[in-house]
Amino acid sequence: MKKYNKVVLAYSGGLDTSVIIPWLKENYGCEVIAVVGNVGQKSELEGLEEKALKTGASKIYIEDLTEEFVNDYIFPTIQAGAIYEGKYLLGTSFARPLIGKRMVEIAKKEGADAICHGCTGKGNDQVRFELAIKAFAPEMPIIAPWRIWDIKSREEEIAYALEKKVPIKISYETNYSKDMNLWHLSHEGLDLEDPNNEPNYEKILELSTTLEKAPDKATYITLSFEKGIPVALNGVKMDGVKLLEELNKLGGENAIGITDMVENRLVGMKSRGVYETPGGTILYKAHKDLEELCLDKETAHYKEQVALKFADIVYNGLWFTSLREALHSFVLKTQETVTGEVKLKLYKGNVVNAGMTSPYSLYSEEYATFGEDAVYDQKDSAGFVNLFGLPIVVHAKMNAKIKSEEK
Amino acid sequence: MKKYNKVVLAYSGGLDTSVIIPWLKENYGCEVIAVVGNVGQKSELEGLEEKALKTGASKIYIEDLTEEFVNDYIFPTIQAGAIYEGKYLLGTSFARPLIGKRMVEIAKKEGADAICHGCTGKGNDQVRFELAIKAFAPEMPIIAPWRIWDIKSREEEIAYALEKKVPIKISYETNYSKDMNLWHLSHEGLDLEDPNNEPNYEKILELSTTLEKAPDKATYITLSFEKGIPVALNGVKMDGVKLLEELNKLGGENAIGITDMVENRLVGMKSRGVYETPGGTILYKAHKDLEELCLDKETAHYKEQVALKFADIVYNGLWFTSLREALHSFVLKTQETVTGEVKLKLYKGNVVNAGMTSPYSLYSEEYATFGEDAVYDQKDSAGFVNLFGLPIVVHAKMNAKIKSEEK
Amino acid sequence: MKKYNKVVLAYSGGLDTSVIIPWLKENYGCEVIAVVGNVGQKSELEGLEEKALKTGASKIYIEDLTEEFVNDYIFPTIQAGAIYEGKYLLGTSFARPLIGKRMVEIAKKEGADAICHGCTGKGNDQVRFELAIKAFAPEMPIIAPWRIWDIKSREEEIAYALEKKVPIKISYETNYSKDMNLWHLSHEGLDLEDPNNEPNYEKILELSTTLEKAPDKATYITLSFEKGIPVALNGVKMDGVKLLEELNKLGGENAIGITDMVENRLVGMKSRGVYETPGGTILYKAHKDLEELCLDKETAHYKEQVALKFADIVYNGLWFTSLREALHSFVLKTQETVTGEVKLKLYKGNVVNAGMTSPYSLYSEEYATFGEDAVYDQKDSAGFVNLFGLPIVVHAKMNAKIKSEEK
Amino acid sequence: MKKYNKVVLAYSGGLDTSVIIPWLKENYGCEVIAVVGNVGQKSELEGLEEKALKTGASKIYIEDLTEEFVNDYIFPTIQAGAIYEGKYLLGTSFARPLIGKRMVEIAKKEGADAICHGCTGKGNDQVRFELAIKAFAPEMPIIAPWRIWDIKSREEEIAYALEKKVPIKISYETNYSKDMNLWHLSHEGLDLEDPNNEPNYEKILELSTTLEKAPDKATYITLSFEKGIPVALNGVKMDGVKLLEELNKLGGENAIGITDMVENRLVGMKSRGVYETPGGTILYKAHKDLEELCLDKETAHYKEQVALKFADIVYNGLWFTSLREALHSFVLKTQETVTGEVKLKLYKGNVVNAGMTSPYSLYSEEYATFGEDAVYDQKDSAGFVNLFGLPIVVHAKMNAKIKSEEK
Repeated sequence: MKKYNKVVLAYSGGLDTSVIIPWLKENYGCEVIAVVGNVGQKSELEGLEEKALKTGASKIYIEDLTEEFVNDYIFPTIQAGAIYEGKYLLGTSFARPLIGKRMVEIAKKEGADAICHGCTGKGNDQVRFELAIKAFAPEMPIIAPWRIWDIKSREEEIAYALEKKVPIKISYETNYSKDMNLWHLSHEGLDLEDPNNEPNYEKILELSTTLEKAPDKATYITLSFEKGIPVALNGVKMDGVKLLEELNKLGGENAIGITDMVENRLVGMKSRGVYETPGGTILYKAHKDLEELCLDKETAHYKEQVALKFADIVYNGLWFTSLREALHSFVLKTQETVTGEVKLKLYKGNVVNAGMTSPYSLYSEEYATFGEDAVYDQKDSAGFVNLFGLPIVVHAKMNAKIKSEEK
Repeated sequence: MKKYNKVVLAYSGGLDTSVIIPWLKENYGCEVIAVVGNVGQKSELEGLEEKALKTGASKIYIEDLTEEFVNDYIFPTIQAGAIYEGKYLLGTSFARPLIGKRMVEIAKKEGADAICHGCTGKGNDQVRFELAIKAFAPEMPIIAPWRIWDIKSREEEIAYALEKKVPIKISYETNYSKDMNLWHLSHEGLDLEDPNNEPNYEKILELSTTLEKAPDKATYITLSFEKGIPVALNGVKMDGVKLLEELNKLGGENAIGITDMVENRLVGMKSRGVYETPGGTILYKAHKDLEELCLDKETAHYKEQVALKFADIVYNGLWFTSLREALHSFVLKTQETVTGEVKLKLYKGNVVNAGMTSPYSLYSEEYATFGEDAVYDQKDSAGFVNLFGLPIVVHAKMNAKIKSEEK
Repeated sequence: MKKYNKVVLAYSGGLDTSVIIPWLKENYGCEVIAVVGNVGQKSELEGLEEKALKTGASKIYIEDLTEEFVNDYIFPTIQAGAIYEGKYLLGTSFARPLIGKRMVEIAKKEGADAICHGCTGKGNDQVRFELAIKAFAPEMPIIAPWRIWDIKSREEEIAYALEKKVPIKISYETNYSKDMNLWHLSHEGLDLEDPNNEPNYEKILELSTTLEKAPDKATYITLSFEKGIPVALNGVKMDGVKLLEELNKLGGENAIGITDMVENRLVGMKSRGVYETPGGTILYKAHKDLEELCLDKETAHYKEQVALKFADIVYNGLWFTSLREALHSFVLKTQETVTGEVKLKLYKGNVVNAGMTSPYSLYSEEYATFGEDAVYDQKDSAGFVNLFGLPIVVHAKMNAKIKSEEK
Repeated sequence: MKKYNKVVLAYSGGLDTSVIIPWLKENYGCEVIAVVGNVGQKSELEGLEEKALKTGASKIYIEDLTEEFVNDYIFPTIQAGAIYEGKYLLGTSFARPLIGKRMVEIAKKEGADAICHGCTGKGNDQVRFELAIKAFAPEMPIIAPWRIWDIKSREEEIAYALEKKVPIKISYETNYSKDMNLWHLSHEGLDLEDPNNEPNYEKILELSTTLEKAPDKATYITLSFEKGIPVALNGVKMDGVKLLEELNKLGGENAIGITDMVENRLVGMKSRGVYETPGGTILYKAHKDLEELCLDKETAHYKEQVALKFADIVYNGLWFTSLREALHSFVLKTQETVTGEVKLKLYKGNVVNAGMTSPYSLYSEEYATFGEDAVYDQKDSAGFVNLFGLPIVVHAKMNAKIKSEEK
């Protein structure tokens, strides 16, 4: 095995990345620098420094990435309206590139000669991490222990942890595989691995209550957007992180944004997961509704296609690519008039539009009304239908000619 | 004005099409044959024959189109997964072509020399009707009174009705503009014309109860699909019409499928409507979920794009076109393996997947599991990531070269 | 007929727009201001002022739009790579909006109360002109004589011209319908109206020689691009107008860019035309080739789709729309690295790449070579193929399982 | 190394696959069965049996796949109009899956326990071969010597060949890397590896003459299509293989279909190649032209998008996938009326349309003519433009309102 002097490790404090520290030292003879990207995983952050050092890391960086996460990753994706396979709001997908980018910055600053992550070889996250690393340090060696070591099960992992005196609460009880950040919480594994099992939401949900336990009384909120970016809640201006925290609370209480899906991973297989995205679901809904007022049809319809591609790109870890940037330019241009207020009713899993306004509204009551109006000449419709339908007429006449010749 | 001998009229028995009968006779000196296409509008059908004849029609056809509607229009659109602007399940859009086609058949049988409809000149339905007529009778004259007559308001319409002794319950009370069939009920107009007004669902809803009044206990159902077509409910095989009626009842009781949107009409303006599609919403959800199991990623993703186009085509009344047929061929091929059972929980506006199975499932627990497995070599991932990420590496190196040369 | 005080007319000096001047005065009692947008139609511009005034116009504007045409309309369309229906380089399509925009500016300056154009009611140009006018003066009345007057043939037109003493060389000999500007020359009508007639190129071509008469010796040129914009020919920097003129000469001499097609008009019918676009064809080819070096695969492939939409938008006269602007933003972002030199061989209708370089080239000989290399580990391919092919394996196994169960 | 009893080898008789025979026997202790898929590579097929047996193969299959190649792979791709990156007609891409499929059939018949191919680890063909194998034998081991053996250069390969007494004419002179079949001949490597080198066509071309040497007199031909399939040349019905051979001869003589491009490989890097596709280029041109007559606009435009995807799929070796089949269903439906005759002029690299007819033509002289007509009411255009442009009016009015409020 190749030797390294200093390896930067994407560290979470969980069993996997804790075990990796002694493993790296043993196998590469290297110093290990733990890096934690705080993207809002909250309670998981407590006591990390002590734990990392006790486990053998020489240093730990705990980087607050929440603001960058919200402004540069989450909001552009909301503006794009990107949803993967009709359901997944990309919570893990766009966090990985950000963390990967910071890993490279720290590795360069520290003069590290390799970067290590604890992702499994079967998932998307290895790709997302590594593509971000390649984008900023194309020749940096990447170590992915799960793809190379001999540890093949939780039991073996715990045994190794005990042997290396890793200071971790050993629990043989298994749990769902989770990923938490300011945007969402995902759950995979265990009984969810059979798509025929109804999720036990009582047991699974952490950010949200269940549909049944959500209050019997609706909560009304108003969101303000400027150029497609949410800037205020109930008339109070606040930064993105604060806004999302508030919406997560409100959404969670009303059981908003719980999704169960079988998705297609980038690495070729399907997997099944349950996602909680309470605040995000509210934001997507409000933003989409406001676009109904502010975008013209051609733009809105083309943007639906762009959203599909944008979602694929983000899901596949291709954040730092020319195509993502070019699509972002497209989206930004469309958002120039997506400004206004959306009132929403939150009620037992439902986000219901309760009225909206925009100074850039393209909705015109005088055109839309069934009553008399001064602006729209209904006679124009006859000409429109005749020309719009001309290809159908030409086709029908061709058919008739063919049929008459066949006789 | 040109004279006609016999005009076939798309008749509903409402004020508009009732007034048209004497107007046609007066202006064209023609016999009027009323045609009602029964696409499941139910109670609106009672007493129509008597009413039409009393109003001056010489004959009435009441055509039961429900079966054709479900099998040839609704089900192919579900298979396509087509949703207009992310919300509208196309309930009115695909009913019009069917009725238009039948109008032509009757006009030809009757030797009529024109076809008339009561659609306004500001809406989509005039286009949908007329394109269907053009497809089957490209040279048939079409009369659209609202685009040509002098009647400009409800008051004038009622005055004309009274003058012509049209046997209709005259009500000066206005109501939402509605379109009802087996698939949905739409509501437009009045206070809905201001997108900032929250809909008064208590007053509006007819097929559904409100979210608040839906039962506190969930309803579980199981839907069986064969090649993308729903064929059984709770294990009981039934034809499409029966199935949809059952689902409308269950969906309506649980407040499923209530949508409020500002949509882009074909004729250039935005309009705002509330749609009730209880059974349809359940079917779309179940079908989409089952496709998650049965379609591979590339097919599923491309089909998302096709669905956007399919929705536009249906919305725009282009049902009887080569492109609609070619997209249908695409869709049919994808549906060959969309067979299986989906269990759903209906609860206060939510349709929640509660487990599903398919003999054609492409989900493989052995690939997806986090645990050890015999089938997937995690080492393959390293090569995959390296090649998948190669363009990023090349790009990063080019950038680095450019930067080093700039120095 | 409504009366107007002052009408601004898009004037060319040809029979049609000459006849319109007295017709406008006669029918609307208005003053007529002629506007000529010079987009490079050359010889057609001589003597226009005198002719317009003699015909009864009170004033004429001859606006030099060539620079704006090249920089703001032609070059962005080259950057987009937009080609309508695989053949048409949009020469007329993007000239109309520019002229329409200037018409509005002049109409506003002059306080005119209507704008008039001489386009037929069967073509695309009426739409392109009028959409541009609507974009900048949404309430300005538009007069399109061909859609309303009684003149129905060339003979009637000439008779009217004689009656009104229009000073025009009267010729009963018909000619192809043509549109000429700096970018192209189009030909329609006469024998071309039957798609089974081979065009008589000897008679038709004006910008180009025929394939047969083009020189037997190739011409080599080098084009330099900066961010997707051509900036130099054979190493000599020149502005866009000059560059295009030079390329038109070189292209015309070598019979480059002659296209014969049956195209789908916006207004519902097919038409057949012959286009000469000598310089433009060279520029499209050179730009596309350079993009092969400078764009990564994902960007290039998505841009192919965007190009299709961009072409539709331009063809349909939707230049001044949000979607065109948003797609332009997308394109501009992709062009940031499309800088370099392309050498081309021009020979009897062929434009052949003869070598190219770019500082931003993503082509890497070390990756591409068949020989030994230090950068690409061929073992990575095994993993790549296995994961890329995993869905096929899963599908094949599912099929095998189904088949074995059927037995 | 794992041991195999019997390995089926994709054999060409060239140095690479000749060396593989002894290498397989030495390393796996296996019997080697050589399989040659005849897809029209012609002269390369002579003496193969003797050579294979002398080199150590126990058996050789020479399979005539030409008919299947043309009918099931080439023609559907022409119908789709698929062109990779605007230039490449997919000649190698769609041959590989066919050969791979036959390999599996022979492997199964022979009871072989592995399949071997001689593709490099840097190219697309390894993927195309292996995906075909996975589609029909998902668990069949695949041996790709170039990805695993120690031979790293031509010199080492020749040394190994000499050592193993491989009966091959040893030539240290290198040549372009070529792939030849009934559809095309490709050239890569040597001086072509620098995109700034103009190809030496005199030296490279084998199927075609150079532009300069092509005759000074044009060749006229007529192609007949039925449902998008070419069925006759100059009025003489012939099968696809014969037709393609004739067209290759005619195209080659007139220097048709020579392409030079930098393409994006599936495995992440760019490569540069020269392709000769004489007959294929003629067929694509004729088919595209005929579609201009026979397809309506909406179908034609959507099909342009489908063609892009189809090309990607074929290029990437995904022939045997659900999406390819579903897109094929789409295409087939569109081809039902693509029947007719296209006359073409072949002249020094140019394929020029010289007239075409179809019983299903949607071109209508009476609609297209500039002269008076009875079928198209130009007044309809006014209504069409007004409604088509309504979104622009609404947008302009919104802008004006915003501006007036800002003051």
